[in-house]
Amino acid sequence: MATAPSKHKPFTTEHRDVSAPRPYPQSRKRYVTGTRPDVRVAMREVAQHPTMTDDGAVVEENPPIVLYDTSGPYTDAEATIDVELGLPPLRAPWLQRREGVASIGETAGGRPTAFPTQRTRYRAKSGANITQMYYARQGIVTEEMEYVALRENACLEQYPETLRKTAPGTDVFSPITPEFVRDEVARGRAIIPANINHTELEPMIIGRRFAVKINANIGNSALGSSIEDEVEKMVWAIRWGADTVMDLSTGADIHDTREWIVRNAPVPIGSVPLYQALEKVGGDAAALTWEIVRDTLIEQAEQGVDYFTLHAALLREHIPLTTSRLTGIVSRGGAIMAAWCLAHEQENFLYSHWDDVCDILAAYDVAVSIGDGLRPGAIHDANDAAQFAELKTQGALTRRAWERHVQVMNEGPGHVPMHLIAANMDKQETWCDEAPFYTLGPLPTDIAAGYDHVASALGGAMIALNGTAMLCYVTPKEHLGLPDKDDVRVGVVTHKLAAHAADLAKGLPGACIRDNAMSKARYEFRWADQAALSLDPERSMELRAASFPDTQPLPEGYCSMCGPEFCSMRLYRRICPQQELPK
Amino acid sequence: MATAPSKHKPFTTEHRDVSAPRPYPQSRKRYVTGTRPDVRVAMREVAQHPTMTDDGAVVEENPPIVLYDTSGPYTDAEATIDVELGLPPLRAPWLQRREGVASIGETAGGRPTAFPTQRTRYRAKSGANITQMYYARQGIVTEEMEYVALRENACLEQYPETLRKTAPGTDVFSPITPEFVRDEVARGRAIIPANINHTELEPMIIGRRFAVKINANIGNSALGSSIEDEVEKMVWAIRWGADTVMDLSTGADIHDTREWIVRNAPVPIGSVPLYQALEKVGGDAAALTWEIVRDTLIEQAEQGVDYFTLHAALLREHIPLTTSRLTGIVSRGGAIMAAWCLAHEQENFLYSHWDDVCDILAAYDVAVSIGDGLRPGAIHDANDAAQFAELKTQGALTRRAWERHVQVMNEGPGHVPMHLIAANMDKQETWCDEAPFYTLGPLPTDIAAGYDHVASALGGAMIALNGTAMLCYVTPKEHLGLPDKDDVRVGVVTHKLAAHAADLAKGLPGACIRDNAMSKARYEFRWADQAALSLDPERSMELRAASFPDTQPLPEGYCSMCGPEFCSMRLYRRICPQQELPK
Repeated sequence: MATAPSKHKPFTTEHRDVSAPRPYPQSRKRYVTGTRPDVRVAMREVAQHPTMTDDGAVVEENPPIVLYDTSGPYTDAEATIDVELGLPPLRAPWLQRREGVASIGETAGGRPTAFPTQRTRYRAKSGANITQMYYARQGIVTEEMEYVALRENACLEQYPETLRKTAPGTDVFSPITPEFVRDEVARGRAIIPANINHTELEPMIIGRRFAVKINANIGNSALGSSIEDEVEKMVWAIRWGADTVMDLSTGADIHDTREWIVRNAPVPIGSVPLYQALEKVGGDAAALTWEIVRDTLIEQAEQGVDYFTLHAALLREHIPLTTSRLTGIVSRGGAIMAAWCLAHEQENFLYSHWDDVCDILAAYDVAVSIGDGLRPGAIHDANDAAQFAELKTQGALTRRAWERHVQVMNEGPGHVPMHLIAANMDKQETWCDEAPFYTLGPLPTDIAAGYDHVASALGGAMIALNGTAMLCYVTPKEHLGLPDKDDVRVGVVTHKLAAHAADLAKGLPGACIRDNAMSKARYEFRWADQAALSLDPERSMELRAASFPDTQPLPEGYCSMCGPEFCSMRLYRRICPQQELPK
Repeated sequence: MATAPSKHKPFTTEHRDVSAPRPYPQSRKRYVTGTRPDVRVAMREVAQHPTMTDDGAVVEENPPIVLYDTSGPYTDAEATIDVELGLPPLRAPWLQRREGVASIGETAGGRPTAFPTQRTRYRAKSGANITQMYYARQGIVTEEMEYVALRENACLEQYPETLRKTAPGTDVFSPITPEFVRDEVARGRAIIPANINHTELEPMIIGRRFAVKINANIGNSALGSSIEDEVEKMVWAIRWGADTVMDLSTGADIHDTREWIVRNAPVPIGSVPLYQALEKVGGDAAALTWEIVRDTLIEQAEQGVDYFTLHAALLREHIPLTTSRLTGIVSRGGAIMAAWCLAHEQENFLYSHWDDVCDILAAYDVAVSIGDGLRPGAIHDANDAAQFAELKTQGALTRRAWERHVQVMNEGPGHVPMHLIAANMDKQETWCDEAPFYTLGPLPTDIAAGYDHVASALGGAMIALNGTAMLCYVTPKEHLGLPDKDDVRVGVVTHKLAAHAADLAKGLPGACIRDNAMSKARYEFRWADQAALSLDPERSMELRAASFPDTQPLPEGYCSMCGPEFCSMRLYRRICPQQELPK
């Protein structure tokens, strides 16, 4: 049994991102209340400086910009952070109003955890349906649905009409309503991953008609890391914009690490339960059984994991299709299930027990992310028969899960050259009936080691433009090693960039308001506002300062790229006075 | 007058990338000779380790992989580098065989330079045509054309048929012949920027049917840098893959900095002559005259600049179209010419003197890159009337330059949302009769400060897939400050990645051979080979080592991502022995 960090030691000086709130520059946390007083949606509000003349006179005020905020209480100056207590159970009162939910004690999977504060665990009463999809199909708008509708809109209505612009060439949009959210969830085109045991969650939605989301993978390996490190990585990842976090630990203390993460996470937590199951059988894939995996699913569901990646669509008959590949099977879960099928000469037990799996998922409203165990790991293997045979099976499993009101998304590749990316989206959309697509990359080249985060963002932006709902991040360490904290930051910001570029191009409500505010600040040399509005304010400020090594304070009217006399915008403002301060 | 570095001080210990050859890891320089013995094309040959069993027995040898190489003699272990002498004048004997070329003494523009070794300067004899486009139209295959044909093929014929694969879903290709090169240059769809005064040049080609190229901008600003710094940045940029380098100096010693760079550059050097012209008139745009610019063009042409960016297509009537923009004019050259037009109430003198400009260009075979002074600097301004009015004018100027056998490319945006990127390429192709398109980005969002290299690579890859021939790099410092050496490296590698991804998707001959070799090395745990084949071998090795801080030597059979027991490829190789060592 793992030992949890003691009461007095952890998360202090060396874990500064977790030990106290750290607001974003020039920003405050803003809460927007829905029709129910306990639906209070957290957003980030960025203050802007006024537009000034060169003489320092105020020309106009610039409105605060409201941004979608994934960071939870960790950036709220008023919040008290106590990682041994966990975050406030925001959703507890919502769940208490639901008749189908029953408490089942304080252990998860019958197992006590080393987290200092115990939580009551819940599951659906026998025969009761409690998933967001079920409610949506009944015409019920849950608190979660209202939360995500308000969240996606990010106070769009506060801006004057002249600022409510989408990118050129996109349609004028309509705001997202709770009813629209309900309809998308009901038809399976969007999911709200929200396990009833993750009461700390700030609900979010994943679907092609909403902002593109990104996931950050964390988790230890046999070679290192600690619980403190992993909790800190989670907080760090959401600070930079991760919408969900997957705990992919394969090393020590898997159960306890997860408990610490879930209790302190305002975002959905995903996992690959097979990893822990494999730990339970000493790492021997052939020794896995349905019963061990089943118990692991229940254990993790009772901890509050919001979505499981399950490699249920890799069938025994698919395995021979991989023999002409260059890199075989590159999914850990896929390789485990293939090994099991070959060892036992039997069908994948996740596939043959799919209805049982879905019954467990439904009892806690765990969403399922049907894994792509046969995703291509090389350009050479892209869009091949193995990959697409599994994708078709993902579609069949999607429909069966929907029969049990289980929320579903599908995982996608992998390594795919640019010209074949759209075909992945098209086939998934058709074969999987528009269930949300969740892709890793795709990486459009194999040779980018050290820069695979860029490769992934590049392919990810393209597939997101085609309709992918969530991108799994890739860090600079991909193919090379376990990411550290800075890798996590770079990976998250890079994929946030890709997701945002897709949002802009899709004409998403509100997306362009931030870009227009940024460009106006740029044109008016409001450097602090540019930093505050950019994806990574600290990095932006560091890089600007780095080019004036000896200058404090920094000059306001230019940067070191062109110097004071060679700035095109400055020159333009001088020659076109009517254009000096555009709206 | 600037002082050049003394004989004894510069480019020694603190400029290690310039002072002695530094071969790439596991690589040697290989020279391929054409039909003429003095056409010797430099390539990089990467050795690979054999495939081994886990017991250490050799299963098969892996062939060396030949890569397109931009780095010149600086990575040739056998070369002697002497920056005060400059690179060997590779093209001198070729030019001596051409009757239309005459020597005109040792000064450039009548101006002696502070470079220690003087070069003979050339120009076309009166009435003679000496451009690559002229020769191509005459049916003449020049040495430059043969050089680039061999270079683009990168010894494709050396591989067995089984390895000569393009990416899935692309056509089987045919090798590039000198005759094909000639035809593309004749019709203006490709250019070989090769000023007759840049004899040190290793010729290269820019056009949609060839590998996508990238340009790196260097150059000082009023705020700093030295001649040594800028020469070192050039050598550094080509080490990481820059196909051309633009010297955008706007600070001190513009003439001498350029001379040092050209004499030591194996790649085409571009410039924006307007910057130096502006320096000559004390920074006052209104004081510019055609005569000053004309003399600057001649001066730079006689130094050996291979292509000029000229903002000749920004017409007086276009300026009012910018007043509804968010960021006005963001091109330095564009803002300068707009200021001149407004101050004088006259048409852009580069436009009204276009035929005179072209006569100068033709006399030295300087290619022209017709600038996009009205490129959008914000998503808000993308694809607007101002931008497209200028683009149409670029087309008209292209055709007029072609009448004088001047090689032309066109510059493109800027900031453009993803869904509007293809339209830029389509219009350029139509309006500019397929002249090569050379774009900066486009950046598909405005909010990526600190990560704009990623934004640019993302839009760049997409527009390159559509046919753009060259991408101008953007560094992490874009919008924030002057890039330093590390920014240059990151900017170059990131855009090389984008260009390569486009090459793969276009089915470019040879592109996929490198990816397949990389993936095979990955599957076989040949770590050193993976590093050597990746875009940035050193970075790749550093990142792998960073995750094993205390381990020397590094383990061969796994990385810290999954550890020894959780590697999918290792597991797959164990369960699928027939697949252990795929071809």
